[in-house]
Amino acid sequence: MRRVGGACIYNASSNQQRYRSRDDRGRSRATTMGSDYGVPRELSGLQKQRSLYQPELPPCLQGTTVRVEFGDTTIAADPADDHAIRQAFPHTSGQPLAHFLRATANVPDAQIIEEHPAIRVGIVFCGRQSPGGHNVIWGLYNAIKSHNPKSTLFGFVGGTEGLFARRTLEITDDILSTYKNQGGYDLLGRTKDQIRTSEQVNAAMSACQELNLTGLVIIGGVTSHTDAAQLAETFVESKCQTKVVGVPVTLNGDLKNQFVETDVGFDTICKVNSQLIGNVCTDALSAEKYYYFIRLMGRKASHVALECTLQSHPNMVILGEHVAASKLAIFDITKQMCDAVQARAEKDKYHGVILIPEGLVESIPELFALLQEIHGLHRQGVSVENMPSQLSPWASALFEFLPPFMRKQLLLHPESDDSAQLSQIETERLLAHLVETEMNRRLKEGTYIGKKFNAICHFFGYQARGSLPSKFDCDYAYALGHVCYHILAAGLNGYMATITNLKNPVNKWRCGAAPITAMMTVKRFYGPGATAIGKPAIHPATVDLEGKAYEWVRLRASSLLMDDMYRNPGPVQFEGPGADAKSISLCVEDQDYMGRIKLLQEYLDKVKSIVKPGCSQDVLKAALSAMGSVTDVLALMSSSSMNGQTPL
Amino acid sequence: MRRVGGACIYNASSNQQRYRSRDDRGRSRATTMGSDYGVPRELSGLQKQRSLYQPELPPCLQGTTVRVEFGDTTIAADPADDHAIRQAFPHTSGQPLAHFLRATANVPDAQIIEEHPAIRVGIVFCGRQSPGGHNVIWGLYNAIKSHNPKSTLFGFVGGTEGLFARRTLEITDDILSTYKNQGGYDLLGRTKDQIRTSEQVNAAMSACQELNLTGLVIIGGVTSHTDAAQLAETFVESKCQTKVVGVPVTLNGDLKNQFVETDVGFDTICKVNSQLIGNVCTDALSAEKYYYFIRLMGRKASHVALECTLQSHPNMVILGEHVAASKLAIFDITKQMCDAVQARAEKDKYHGVILIPEGLVESIPELFALLQEIHGLHRQGVSVENMPSQLSPWASALFEFLPPFMRKQLLLHPESDDSAQLSQIETERLLAHLVETEMNRRLKEGTYIGKKFNAICHFFGYQARGSLPSKFDCDYAYALGHVCYHILAAGLNGYMATITNLKNPVNKWRCGAAPITAMMTVKRFYGPGATAIGKPAIHPATVDLEGKAYEWVRLRASSLLMDDMYRNPGPVQFEGPGADAKSISLCVEDQDYMGRIKLLQEYLDKVKSIVKPGCSQDVLKAALSAMGSVTDVLALMSSSSMNGQTPL
Repeated sequence: MRRVGGACIYNASSNQQRYRSRDDRGRSRATTMGSDYGVPRELSGLQKQRSLYQPELPPCLQGTTVRVEFGDTTIAADPADDHAIRQAFPHTSGQPLAHFLRATANVPDAQIIEEHPAIRVGIVFCGRQSPGGHNVIWGLYNAIKSHNPKSTLFGFVGGTEGLFARRTLEITDDILSTYKNQGGYDLLGRTKDQIRTSEQVNAAMSACQELNLTGLVIIGGVTSHTDAAQLAETFVESKCQTKVVGVPVTLNGDLKNQFVETDVGFDTICKVNSQLIGNVCTDALSAEKYYYFIRLMGRKASHVALECTLQSHPNMVILGEHVAASKLAIFDITKQMCDAVQARAEKDKYHGVILIPEGLVESIPELFALLQEIHGLHRQGVSVENMPSQLSPWASALFEFLPPFMRKQLLLHPESDDSAQLSQIETERLLAHLVETEMNRRLKEGTYIGKKFNAICHFFGYQARGSLPSKFDCDYAYALGHVCYHILAAGLNGYMATITNLKNPVNKWRCGAAPITAMMTVKRFYGPGATAIGKPAIHPATVDLEGKAYEWVRLRASSLLMDDMYRNPGPVQFEGPGADAKSISLCVEDQDYMGRIKLLQEYLDKVKSIVKPGCSQDVLKAALSAMGSVTDVLALMSSSSMNGQTPL
Repeated sequence: MRRVGGACIYNASSNQQRYRSRDDRGRSRATTMGSDYGVPRELSGLQKQRSLYQPELPPCLQGTTVRVEFGDTTIAADPADDHAIRQAFPHTSGQPLAHFLRATANVPDAQIIEEHPAIRVGIVFCGRQSPGGHNVIWGLYNAIKSHNPKSTLFGFVGGTEGLFARRTLEITDDILSTYKNQGGYDLLGRTKDQIRTSEQVNAAMSACQELNLTGLVIIGGVTSHTDAAQLAETFVESKCQTKVVGVPVTLNGDLKNQFVETDVGFDTICKVNSQLIGNVCTDALSAEKYYYFIRLMGRKASHVALECTLQSHPNMVILGEHVAASKLAIFDITKQMCDAVQARAEKDKYHGVILIPEGLVESIPELFALLQEIHGLHRQGVSVENMPSQLSPWASALFEFLPPFMRKQLLLHPESDDSAQLSQIETERLLAHLVETEMNRRLKEGTYIGKKFNAICHFFGYQARGSLPSKFDCDYAYALGHVCYHILAAGLNGYMATITNLKNPVNKWRCGAAPITAMMTVKRFYGPGATAIGKPAIHPATVDLEGKAYEWVRLRASSLLMDDMYRNPGPVQFEGPGADAKSISLCVEDQDYMGRIKLLQEYLDKVKSIVKPGCSQDVLKAALSAMGSVTDVLALMSSSSMNGQTPL
């Protein structure tokens, strides 16, 4: 038994009850089971205020009656992947999109979900804690209870390990009271964040069956949703009745595709980091003696770094996607930075702010190759001490060139998805070190005339993850929680809850659900004479180097570098001006894929209704001719040859 | 010439005009002098909103008529120091306190300041940028102009170096417009922050004389005010007409004494840091796998660490004052931390948050001794490479024991006040390293049974200094700027602007001025058979280990450690609930020294008015008897023997 949020948790997997307290915050209390269920934790004044905030809901989720409209069956973004995905997910791929509409919506095929039997739902946190996660639970809880007060929501305590061990906490309004609109994942905690091996999948299935769950909701990012899709498929195959639903919650912002515009947590993380970057910019300009190298959390993709650039206007940002596309070596990046420092020194500027995404280290070709060798040795069970001697001559030379702290960090065991431990590798210190060495060399040689280069390094990540969620993330997460309920009420399995048109006010948001398999792609490895195919999976969306957000940076690169256009978005506000601000990349990008899919359907319906049997021959001819050329163009555009890019 | 805030600065010390731009933020502009004076910089939405905020003023500063009341002449806090201070500051010590009152105040001896001739005032930033600094300039500017529109305010560009070089920027409302209520010192910048050598003092004096300044306002902390007092004394001696006024602005919060309750910037810094610490606490509790070691800015004293503890309730804080008082060695601290980690592990807790003030390294006796040796070698001109071999055997043994990064940092050149470069010495990494080593040893030996200890280190400083100032700091700084004007209008020299009763609403604030020399103490060094006396100076106020703020922490130490009482104050709010929050240590401590001094005067006056010639013999006898015993007790209490402590 473990106490969480003041409540007792029965550990079903252990015969002996375990006592563990997490909420004994200075209060004396008995440790017997259930004696102080739901004791609230101490909140600060602002936390209390926030706990009273009632998130807005889009119109379709207000009230208890919701209509569901099924769209067309989905296909893979890249037709070439479709076959592999259908093979891997015979039961759960190719399912239709679902749209949730108001009860009053005048849509002929949309049905009102009439039946609301009492259901039992489990929910689990997977992956990096992202601000807003608690609100998904709250939203789901409210939706469940308002449709049938006899329904029950169980939180799995301790993430996926809690799921396997069947450690549950029944969610009540009391327990939620001090977690509403609050950051972190501490209501339930999280652990391994993986449901992948057959042992793990079976443990999850047994838990769902034993607890007789109607639905299992997985709160997580890219890898967790690949796991969720696999789980959904296995459940159908094994005739397990539990439906699996995913919710896009990840601070990395990299679970982004045709159906998902942004992830819960991304907005807050970028705002908190941009505030700090803005502060550092002001600091740099005040003392004019330091270059700040700031590494930002965000895993492989550079969405966080890009959004923070848009919000705070630092002097430079090195996007992993740009480095990978341009195949820049570590020396190219160093040289580019040194030239920038030199150009600024010529204008008598000895300060600056440079952003670096944590994924950069994997985007630099030679470092990536070195990491691959090291991870290979890890898989072979080679001990860390013996690794340096077993590297290839080329990798060994690079390894020896790197400063000691970097060597130690590169040797760390890779994460469960085989990527490097990005949060532990101080790429910003490596770059600052290389730039310093090079500037000192130039100074000595006389090719640089100016003051000594001074760098200060930062990693912004852990200090933002636990932040109070912004209003946007509070609303978005709460509404997604509601959508989860309707997905389950509609009996869908292997779906992700989606809300689109997010850049507009909440009353314009569109709620729906998309099969997780429709977001998958297949990686191909081209070898000499053969092509290997990876398992279908959701892959992190990379920053679109042709998109509007990056275009803004590209067009202003030299002003950003030279003119100190620093901008401080300030601390996240909950009332008054600024409280409703949304992330810039969300607003500049013209997404609303789901809205367009619906609009297309309307056009097609219109054609059908105009060109009915009985219409004139001319109208029919014109329709045929027009539709013929439209289909030709679309068929050409959708052919594999034009589909090499990552989605979005 | 240099462009600042969109303005042109004439560099009076150089015959050749220097062109330097700082504001060319993507705008095309001519670089000829004065052509784009006051071009505003780009602000974010929230920055813009803040720039429109009009700070509140206490009643005595509203309107243009102010009464000044002079109190008693001041003495040193420790009578033993009085002689040395009077000797060092014959002209500027022993001056009376001044209180600024409303024109309508019914105080017999208070005079209305009637004359407001046009004056010329210079202002300069010294020391670490602290949020609110810009508002001192704005407040002073408004007060100057509202009393005589012909008066002029000059900002020195580039801190003390700008002062020596007479680089001035005339402050206008246009120039201020995008700096009102904004963080940083970037309107004017700052550099060396020292006016101490006779060369520097003379350069400052020539600048004041050449610019024909009525007053010079120094914005800074502890050391800058010692410099300011010296400057004031030298000016009188040299018959320079310029009056010197200081304003207590330092994020460290260590310029604190009978007259100064808190410093501009401290409130904001603690709030921003507490937000981040609160986030990290939430993070720790969500993933339950890391110990976070967080070092906080604040120089020698631990005020910032203490206030952040009160606001965010981490598991542990190691105050430098406590370590110094208890003479804890580095191994004692390590052991204490390891025992804490072990005790938590026994309760199945593998996470935690530990705060460390940056000054800690100088409070640990053996590290301080090592630093002293190293600084001695620096003074002898020994090169860094040769230092390790020239250390005493004892110091050398300690040095060799330390990890390489620490050795490198300890060898850094000391700062201008001979203290170590505290911001560059990663004490948090040292402690995390030592704790990890010890926990691994215990694990191997079997004396610790539990999961591996994992630490993540942070230094919170640079990311908070440039922050938008809190409402409190905006108001406090703006009002202090006004007070500066009235000090100059009253013709005072060597004074610090003060506002007391700060824990109450602005309409209860009391404005005044205190001679800087009254805040000085003299350090004594006891050697065998002789006592050396240091120069009188303002010394950083240390945390009062007997005070109410520390008492709160002491009483809850074990709950904080074991029960995870984490509290997240959230981001600084400017509107709605929480916007008016003040720092906790300001509110729990019962200060208002200035208010009490005034109250005492009222009692004395009352006695005098009751016991007038003509009163009855009995009344006179009673008065004599009562006053006799009061004076006896006070004389005893004020004798040197009872005055060993640091002030406050």
